Amino acid sequence: MSENNKIGTYNFVAEPFHVDFTGRLTLGVLGNHLLNCAGFHATERGFGMAELNEENYTWVLSRLAVDMDEMPLQYEPFSVQTWVENVYRLFTDRNFAILDKDGRKIGYARSVWAMISMQTRKPIDLLAINGGDIVNYVCDEPCPIEKPSRIKVMATEPVASLTAKYSDIDINGHVNSIRYIEHILDLFPLEKYRTQRIRRFEMAYVAESYYGDTLSFFLDDDGNDVYGVEVKKNGDETVCRAKVIFE
Amino acid sequence: MSENNKIGTYNFVAEPFHVDFTGRLTLGVLGNHLLNCAGFHATERGFGMAELNEENYTWVLSRLAVDMDEMPLQYEPFSVQTWVENVYRLFTDRNFAILDKDGRKIGYARSVWAMISMQTRKPIDLLAINGGDIVNYVCDEPCPIEKPSRIKVMATEPVASLTAKYSDIDINGHVNSIRYIEHILDLFPLEKYRTQRIRRFEMAYVAESYYGDTLSFFLDDDGNDVYGVEVKKNGDETVCRAKVIFE
Repeated sequence: MSENNKIGTYNFVAEPFHVDFTGRLTLGVLGNHLLNCAGFHATERGFGMAELNEENYTWVLSRLAVDMDEMPLQYEPFSVQTWVENVYRLFTDRNFAILDKDGRKIGYARSVWAMISMQTRKPIDLLAINGGDIVNYVCDEPCPIEKPSRIKVMATEPVASLTAKYSDIDINGHVNSIRYIEHILDLFPLEKYRTQRIRRFEMAYVAESYYGDTLSFFLDDDGNDVYGVEVKKNGDETVCRAKVIFE
Repeated sequence: MSENNKIGTYNFVAEPFHVDFTGRLTLGVLGNHLLNCAGFHATERGFGMAELNEENYTWVLSRLAVDMDEMPLQYEPFSVQTWVENVYRLFTDRNFAILDKDGRKIGYARSVWAMISMQTRKPIDLLAINGGDIVNYVCDEPCPIEKPSRIKVMATEPVASLTAKYSDIDINGHVNSIRYIEHILDLFPLEKYRTQRIRRFEMAYVAESYYGDTLSFFLDDDGNDVYGVEVKKNGDETVCRAKVIFE
């Protein structure tokens, strides 16, 4: 297979309700697009969510790191390229490039996914699915950003908390992956976004949370505009951890 | 001009992060699509936001009513048609039809818009813009749903309140029109959405709210699964009113 066939390219426009007060695409919406592109790319190649659901398998997002030079402005077209970097027995690395309207790369993202059985919630051997066909899509396109790091948060007092509501819940009955990003971005004052922007955002998804769960947000200021965030449900169980780097 | 040219048709797919736990498109996302279609349709005909912004005029959404027989399921294609029903001096009525993957009409929406000067915040005479050209787009396509009604809410104690955060704020520095819908839907317990669905949702946008404003939600149960909601900012100023009808 040629390297070109291994890369999926998808076109978008930064819609009015998808930009923040600075007129730039929000990170939550970009994350949504990235995850959709992952789905499109996998579906077109026979290992998408819909195909897997028939076998009662589903993809689970484990890590996401997004590193942007700039964000598209309102009404600007942009595109997302995605490809599979590695396939291991229990995880696969999927990378992304974000291109502006002129085809210039304005950012990259890395993600790590596992596949689980929806019945047992146990991981599935990726190399055993469809005879390991996914390996044929591995592509050596460069993704010149750091891999997701280990995130450790030391804060013991939450800076915010909320109850998971109807709008937070996805078709699986979980708080959706994008909502966590939005809630985490809401920890920072608007004033910060006026003079700075998010250079890099990392997420480690650890456990699911559900309707009615109390989500508490713990925030470390690591200095140099690097922040660690941990989201816990109902007091003590970690749901996800994020690293947010402003510039 | 033929009637066909007056109607804009736009295609969508119900994306995974745009459906709720029942697997159906959320009303907030549908509302977002409707407002985008309004923008596309107006822009293609020379009276869109971007054109107006150059003159420092902008469209302001005053009323929205959405009435749905059913919502698209996850991954289902659907389309939105939109057209101008009436143009008055200070308001225009824009209608919508929502079509399922087979082209069957599954719902309709009505909206009322004004145009204001961003400098003076005063309304602009629509019949004086571009020589009243917008009148040439008036179309008599049927929209067999009720017009937005007058909404009156009597409750004196709020059932919920929140502070407007970064993710709520749009490019104009206001809490965005769609976020109000999401916050209002979040007033109802998940259990209600498990056995019922929203038949009709009406919104009257009264005033803008801003970052840091405290939004309080007042809820009337009018019986027969009809609810009135009023959103006030900072104690007493009405921001918007909604009517939510379940079935």
